[in-house]
Amino acid sequence: MLQKYKIHSNQLCYICCMGNSIGEIFKLTTFGESHGVVIGGVIDGCPAGLEVDFDFVQKQLDRRKPGQSEITTQRIEPDKVEFLSGIFEGKTIGTPIGFIIRNEDQKSKDYSHLKDTFRPSHADFTYQAKYGIRDYRGGGRSSARETACRVVVGAIAQQVLDSIGVKVSAYVSAVGSIKMNKCYKDMDLEATYKSIVRCPDNEHAERMIVEIEKVKKEGDTIGGEITAIVTGVSAGWGEPVFDKLHAELGKAMLSINAVHGFKYGFGGVDISSSKGSEVNDIIIDESGETKTNFSGGIQGGISNGNDIYCEIMFKPVATIMQKQESIDADGNKVEIEVKGRHDSCVVPRAVSIVESMLALTLVDAYLRSKTNRI
Amino acid sequence: MLQKYKIHSNQLCYICCMGNSIGEIFKLTTFGESHGVVIGGVIDGCPAGLEVDFDFVQKQLDRRKPGQSEITTQRIEPDKVEFLSGIFEGKTIGTPIGFIIRNEDQKSKDYSHLKDTFRPSHADFTYQAKYGIRDYRGGGRSSARETACRVVVGAIAQQVLDSIGVKVSAYVSAVGSIKMNKCYKDMDLEATYKSIVRCPDNEHAERMIVEIEKVKKEGDTIGGEITAIVTGVSAGWGEPVFDKLHAELGKAMLSINAVHGFKYGFGGVDISSSKGSEVNDIIIDESGETKTNFSGGIQGGISNGNDIYCEIMFKPVATIMQKQESIDADGNKVEIEVKGRHDSCVVPRAVSIVESMLALTLVDAYLRSKTNRI
Amino acid sequence: MLQKYKIHSNQLCYICCMGNSIGEIFKLTTFGESHGVVIGGVIDGCPAGLEVDFDFVQKQLDRRKPGQSEITTQRIEPDKVEFLSGIFEGKTIGTPIGFIIRNEDQKSKDYSHLKDTFRPSHADFTYQAKYGIRDYRGGGRSSARETACRVVVGAIAQQVLDSIGVKVSAYVSAVGSIKMNKCYKDMDLEATYKSIVRCPDNEHAERMIVEIEKVKKEGDTIGGEITAIVTGVSAGWGEPVFDKLHAELGKAMLSINAVHGFKYGFGGVDISSSKGSEVNDIIIDESGETKTNFSGGIQGGISNGNDIYCEIMFKPVATIMQKQESIDADGNKVEIEVKGRHDSCVVPRAVSIVESMLALTLVDAYLRSKTNRI
Amino acid sequence: MLQKYKIHSNQLCYICCMGNSIGEIFKLTTFGESHGVVIGGVIDGCPAGLEVDFDFVQKQLDRRKPGQSEITTQRIEPDKVEFLSGIFEGKTIGTPIGFIIRNEDQKSKDYSHLKDTFRPSHADFTYQAKYGIRDYRGGGRSSARETACRVVVGAIAQQVLDSIGVKVSAYVSAVGSIKMNKCYKDMDLEATYKSIVRCPDNEHAERMIVEIEKVKKEGDTIGGEITAIVTGVSAGWGEPVFDKLHAELGKAMLSINAVHGFKYGFGGVDISSSKGSEVNDIIIDESGETKTNFSGGIQGGISNGNDIYCEIMFKPVATIMQKQESIDADGNKVEIEVKGRHDSCVVPRAVSIVESMLALTLVDAYLRSKTNRI
Repeated sequence: MLQKYKIHSNQLCYICCMGNSIGEIFKLTTFGESHGVVIGGVIDGCPAGLEVDFDFVQKQLDRRKPGQSEITTQRIEPDKVEFLSGIFEGKTIGTPIGFIIRNEDQKSKDYSHLKDTFRPSHADFTYQAKYGIRDYRGGGRSSARETACRVVVGAIAQQVLDSIGVKVSAYVSAVGSIKMNKCYKDMDLEATYKSIVRCPDNEHAERMIVEIEKVKKEGDTIGGEITAIVTGVSAGWGEPVFDKLHAELGKAMLSINAVHGFKYGFGGVDISSSKGSEVNDIIIDESGETKTNFSGGIQGGISNGNDIYCEIMFKPVATIMQKQESIDADGNKVEIEVKGRHDSCVVPRAVSIVESMLALTLVDAYLRSKTNRI
Repeated sequence: MLQKYKIHSNQLCYICCMGNSIGEIFKLTTFGESHGVVIGGVIDGCPAGLEVDFDFVQKQLDRRKPGQSEITTQRIEPDKVEFLSGIFEGKTIGTPIGFIIRNEDQKSKDYSHLKDTFRPSHADFTYQAKYGIRDYRGGGRSSARETACRVVVGAIAQQVLDSIGVKVSAYVSAVGSIKMNKCYKDMDLEATYKSIVRCPDNEHAERMIVEIEKVKKEGDTIGGEITAIVTGVSAGWGEPVFDKLHAELGKAMLSINAVHGFKYGFGGVDISSSKGSEVNDIIIDESGETKTNFSGGIQGGISNGNDIYCEIMFKPVATIMQKQESIDADGNKVEIEVKGRHDSCVVPRAVSIVESMLALTLVDAYLRSKTNRI
Repeated sequence: MLQKYKIHSNQLCYICCMGNSIGEIFKLTTFGESHGVVIGGVIDGCPAGLEVDFDFVQKQLDRRKPGQSEITTQRIEPDKVEFLSGIFEGKTIGTPIGFIIRNEDQKSKDYSHLKDTFRPSHADFTYQAKYGIRDYRGGGRSSARETACRVVVGAIAQQVLDSIGVKVSAYVSAVGSIKMNKCYKDMDLEATYKSIVRCPDNEHAERMIVEIEKVKKEGDTIGGEITAIVTGVSAGWGEPVFDKLHAELGKAMLSINAVHGFKYGFGGVDISSSKGSEVNDIIIDESGETKTNFSGGIQGGISNGNDIYCEIMFKPVATIMQKQESIDADGNKVEIEVKGRHDSCVVPRAVSIVESMLALTLVDAYLRSKTNRI
Repeated sequence: MLQKYKIHSNQLCYICCMGNSIGEIFKLTTFGESHGVVIGGVIDGCPAGLEVDFDFVQKQLDRRKPGQSEITTQRIEPDKVEFLSGIFEGKTIGTPIGFIIRNEDQKSKDYSHLKDTFRPSHADFTYQAKYGIRDYRGGGRSSARETACRVVVGAIAQQVLDSIGVKVSAYVSAVGSIKMNKCYKDMDLEATYKSIVRCPDNEHAERMIVEIEKVKKEGDTIGGEITAIVTGVSAGWGEPVFDKLHAELGKAMLSINAVHGFKYGFGGVDISSSKGSEVNDIIIDESGETKTNFSGGIQGGISNGNDIYCEIMFKPVATIMQKQESIDADGNKVEIEVKGRHDSCVVPRAVSIVESMLALTLVDAYLRSKTNRI
């Protein structure tokens, strides 16, 4: 099935990759498979002199970790981060910050039945096609477990942003067909994390929880949406042509497992089917403040000082508790039935991941915007 | 010696930029302002030995250029590309391919009234905030004129893809509220460029043209959507974590002027509100072929050998022929009324740009996928 | 929140860094301070399917580690590498290879006397000037301990090269004024590691050992040179303009602690004072073989298939066992006298580091040379 | 001779490359073959607001151009630079600066005799091996003509440095065996460009000119050395580990055609054979000033505020006016005799190239050093 290459007459070999880093100046590289010893990462380019709030890092990790409420998977991972370098006497010193999170759950579990099977809508087939070899235990590198590393770094990035008055927020705005159209300004975003479904509006939160529990009983999964907001960004962040701020945000969001769509621009209308006269943002003030914010805080790829606003769309989790057909590595038809504890809806746990990718992208844009001042 | 300017009233700064390159191995850098001498670019990393079809390059440029039909701007730019290096006796030689397109229109026009004015929803304010200085003539670097360079490179990228059996296509699938839901497999995509609105379905094309003409008469503009398809991609392209194939495609599309949203995945349903059991793609064949293609040809960020399918959402053009309020550089309220010839809907001209960004991203993914074979 | 510090008396600054990665495709990022918990690294871009010889990795590490002979420092570090990811069932799987080496020595030692002192010709002053904060214990990030990570990766790179018939070698060719002018072809390079001074010629090795012991008794240190050779490289590796193969090799070598010079080209003459007629390499064969090798296997920045040959010059170690003047952080004159166990000559331990940087640079050049084949 | 690859059964293809860019933030990409229409480049990341001194740019170009004195080649190239973008009303605007220099000389000359011949110690063979195709006219991309683009950018970089009090200088310190050991502080470096051989010391300059004329009469060529100095650099430039300031300088210098060696550190002794007690630099002042400067202004890869000092070694030019043996593309022995006008010694013309690479590397280091300040 896979194209095999011969080299030097007797050696089969396969392709390998890259793509494990993000950011130009504030650069994160992650490593680790979901059932290896650890997952971890390295941040290069973090400003020296930042006093790290370790509790906040752990709090963000806890908001992502499995087993935290009745609507998430019951799998238990303590997800404690250990910093290995780059921090001395509580402060960043400008050198790379290495860190690891140990993998503790399910070590003894037998995954050999997955060795030769390709689960539908997972990355089993594609990793096998790309590399010719894969760590089949729990998805290996393709597992969303990797995103815990992003949360560690995002929490540090949020602290850098804090120091300059920038705040990132995200919340669940849709679960399945339960969509909330309330304006973010009319809600208390501090309430987001008080809700297990991460929706700051009580009424919608309750309906979303009901929806997730229903789907869970069916052994099925459901998609959803997250809304993200950044306040306090100065005009001038983002690069004009290919690295437009919204293009970098889009890439960052689309790199999160299960994300399949991204939009930016605020106003509760379908911008693509609107007219220019309806969605142009009139500047009302020399600070650059605009009457409306259909531009979502970004014009020509550069922040204009208004709130940054974007929406991120998630697929339903591919792992369902129902029988599904597939094929094995030899091309034979097989029937797959996954057992165990899995999320029926990933969006509540993804809120801190979205915040992390926002923060990381914005710190990088910020540092790039400062890059070249003489 | 460096100009000082104030932003947010109390901050001296001198800023410079980056972000004018895209691609890891097949790398494009563009330069040029819309009313400078030329716009141009450099491709580094194009494989040696490619026999360049110069007519196809010009054909793609012609499909993007202004003044080509009654529904596009009547501005005239011949948009002839001149290759400066990297091609010898008709073939690429592995060295960088430099090229320019001369700017011929509107040279004598007076733009001084724009010098101190920030047009709504344009990049005038943000460039000024970022750099403290800008070429205000016709938007300068922020003008969509820059995309002509992308089309030159996209046309070469398409030729690289041709040589390995990969084909990129795009077409207009919505103009304002006229949305076409027909499956791409049920249309003749070769017909796209026969329609001035770049919609391969006659009936929808006609309705779209009527819509654009109506908006044009109102001095207004309208948004729309483009659908993009790639056939013939092998399984194994794309990098797993941050540089997922759909994340790179999303960034490439979001870097096009006026794009505000990106989705991937095929099937005519709202994937975010679907259940896993509804949108999981069952593999039916050892080639990796799936029964459905809700994954849009990409799983875990890596191509799975099925058609790549994505949708790109465009805002209405910000330049409208109506009076609008704004402020000038001193913060005074002003009224702006743009005269001249402008597009009422940008999507028809954007089809070849979308194809170009698709091709460029895929060639890069292809070359990266080959990168690391021993 | 951020620590402020003064440099040049009137400039407030907060600085951070980068520069902790090397390689375009086969990319190494290292992290860790010499007296932190661990040092470590991540390799991204290592081809999948390589069966890792862990013993060879450890062997190369042992050749670098302190305390291995009477002419090296007596400090003891076991320097055992722990791989954290990217290797599954003994083989690389294309995902990033994370690894750590624990720091075990001198943990309890008191370094507080170095906190406010800048040792001569060390990086104490420059790190403080750059970051405003530093881990002063044993040099922190600037310590040559970081090079252990390079050796881990170099050992893996050597295995990639092995698989295509390329072999890297290095040996000590000078210690102080003891310079060996023997041609590398007239010696058994396998003998290098049998000599504690890493010189394959017995007679010179003995004189070098005597020299080092003499300097050691004086509490002083001495510089030296390493010669490096690569055999089996095909013609066509290296990029033509800025990333010429010898420029990349030069950078890699100059990034090793204490290296202050680099030359390439073989022939035992001073090429800069030679004539073209004396040092042009006549091609004698369609394989590209040349009569002489003054070009050191590289022409126009690209390998020509002949042996690659270069020389690397090392300063004497800055840490000497003698009283030296310096200043402290407040600008007061101080007298410094270092105690403890230090190397009197670093070149013997640097041989495996040079081999590692050679291998890493060549694997990257090799993968880049394959990058762009259609 | 060359390994040919088949793809898709009927297509021969060859490798292509990259490596045409340098710099992380202040990034130069060059393009162009020596006998194509133009050579040119793009600078991305130049700070906005710089008032460009075009005369200085041309002056530096003139100092590099052929035909300027009796000891350089008599070939005539006007080498006038045309800026295409990124400069508006005389100032940089933060967008990419594109530029070209037209190739005017030797257009009609017949180069077909070189098509199938590999000149000794040129890049003819290696380009053919790498790409399978080459522009054989005058060396194509491998010609030192490419360095004119570096001089354009270097001249702009020098202006950025000027604005912060940093000055780069270079001069010829050796031609063949005529080596000058005078300290740079004992000479008037302003006198360098008054000497056709670019040596600020009259007596040595005269001896060097005699040497070059002698070699020229023999139809031969001769190597030499250039010394480079930078004054005014603050402490804190350069990145600690792989991108050490001297490693970046070394790479930049080694990327210049004919450079085969690089050393840094000042003091007139052979540092590799010295003792630590002899070459340690004692800090005498809180500004970081040192008593001696054996470290060449750089410690641990970071500038320490003292003068940066390095030496660059050049091979003799490979093109000699004597008969030489070689092979043709079919492997047949041939005899080559080059006619025409060539440099007998390249170092005088290389002085402004060295200054340019110094300036470009330092601006990048400077911008990187500012990168990450909060």
